[in-house]
Amino acid sequence: MDEREALAMLASELPGAGDDAAVIGDQVVTTDMLHETTDFPAGTTRYTAGWRAVGASLSDVAAMGARATAAVAAYGAPELDREEIEAFVAGASDVCEAVDAAYVGGDLDGHEEFTVATTALGDADDPVRRSGAQPGDAVCVTGTLGRSAAALELFDDGKPERANDLFRFEPRVAAGRALAPDATAMMDSSDGLARSLHQLAEASDCGVEIDGDAVPIDDAVAEVATDDAERREMGLFFGEDFELVVAIPEDRLDAAIERCPTPLSRVGTVTGAGVEIDGEPLPDRGFTHGKE
Amino acid sequence: MDEREALAMLASELPGAGDDAAVIGDQVVTTDMLHETTDFPAGTTRYTAGWRAVGASLSDVAAMGARATAAVAAYGAPELDREEIEAFVAGASDVCEAVDAAYVGGDLDGHEEFTVATTALGDADDPVRRSGAQPGDAVCVTGTLGRSAAALELFDDGKPERANDLFRFEPRVAAGRALAPDATAMMDSSDGLARSLHQLAEASDCGVEIDGDAVPIDDAVAEVATDDAERREMGLFFGEDFELVVAIPEDRLDAAIERCPTPLSRVGTVTGAGVEIDGEPLPDRGFTHGKE
Repeated sequence: MDEREALAMLASELPGAGDDAAVIGDQVVTTDMLHETTDFPAGTTRYTAGWRAVGASLSDVAAMGARATAAVAAYGAPELDREEIEAFVAGASDVCEAVDAAYVGGDLDGHEEFTVATTALGDADDPVRRSGAQPGDAVCVTGTLGRSAAALELFDDGKPERANDLFRFEPRVAAGRALAPDATAMMDSSDGLARSLHQLAEASDCGVEIDGDAVPIDDAVAEVATDDAERREMGLFFGEDFELVVAIPEDRLDAAIERCPTPLSRVGTVTGAGVEIDGEPLPDRGFTHGKE
Repeated sequence: MDEREALAMLASELPGAGDDAAVIGDQVVTTDMLHETTDFPAGTTRYTAGWRAVGASLSDVAAMGARATAAVAAYGAPELDREEIEAFVAGASDVCEAVDAAYVGGDLDGHEEFTVATTALGDADDPVRRSGAQPGDAVCVTGTLGRSAAALELFDDGKPERANDLFRFEPRVAAGRALAPDATAMMDSSDGLARSLHQLAEASDCGVEIDGDAVPIDDAVAEVATDDAERREMGLFFGEDFELVVAIPEDRLDAAIERCPTPLSRVGTVTGAGVEIDGEPLPDRGFTHGKE
């Protein structure tokens, strides 16, 4: 079973496991495990790792339209080095501060591979699920896509400073809260836009039609991609960008764009069935940690 | 730096990191990372692993005198095997049910070593810290000690069924809540009684005098220990038993024992300084994951 199938299995057994975070009363909670081999390429600083790992969980809180309250992280590494831990905690604290949450601590574990597990908490009176999209709703994306794909290339190309910059994203908590009153369905794009659209379509029992030219590709992608095919691959499929993918009724779209503190791009429309881009089927593939 | 020094460093930098769980308003949150090499000996079933990993975090909630509300777990393994994941989730769910909390889901990660990170949440109007013990308070322990040490021997001896039984402990949430109104300081015994007493003494700026004969050793220890020295080692130093270590003012002790749903043994008394057993210094050593 790959990670995706396993998660689908869990989703069928646990209430709320099909959303970005679990809902307990007016609280949301979400946890993620990241590790060196698949998530932190050579050159990733411990500061960036702390920012990014905790940011990934805060992004799940954002995707529920919740206020982020707090985060914790468990840090496992072969060497419990003081400077590395301090850098990690600084990154974790700073990303929390960026979204008005508190980093409240964690656990340390001697571990063969550098491994981080993060948990973020939030509260929401009316959390936004993946399952409420209706045909005719506008499909939108916050910010830009392809940043993390570009970062990976830059790590490979020996440009770690720029790559680390791109790797530290701002979790879209403020955008998620601003969009929540209008959103019929929301999730983050951590598995890539294509896969996210498939997941949203499946959860909402609908389809999505995307306009390829409307997909907001990050400028950094142009720095590393050699042709249109590569740009498209990075923007649509690579994932790990932690933007929000959201469905909004047509008549509330202008107000939502106005209210959202992050640029919001309309990329398509909810349909009855099928996930398509420019009239062709959009493959359901993306970044799967379990595969490698 | 070993795990203990690293944790001490973090404790000096993060509010609440010196307690079993972080406090955010009327909530407590705690996270733990466990992995195969140090925490799950060969023969540990995935059901037991789920129970024990989530139980370890619930024990931290218990140590704050909080009500346990929910837990999540991130599960990393080389193979995301359906039966193994289901067994893990069943164990995680069952230990939550045992303390009236909800297991609300988690994350899956393809990972070279079997690794689990768990987070538990609770609420408490007035969480009990490690820092309030006063000279003259009685020092007590719930349940019995040495169960996990005995379990390890039994895993080694090829008796996995009995070992798995011993490895699945009931987190002392009900006891923690019953003791909270009277407790001046509380923590769990996950690092062993000796180390826990040192930590409690340090946090409370006091000492502790223990009566060696009063330490409640689990019957299972007799099955595996060959002499008194080994019994004493398992009961005092090994740890991983997840009982509560609590300081209670003398005049409230009888009522606390009466109210506590778990047997509560008085093992000693809070003093001005020094951690001693039967008049001799009690070494500050125990189970340190980071050491191996």
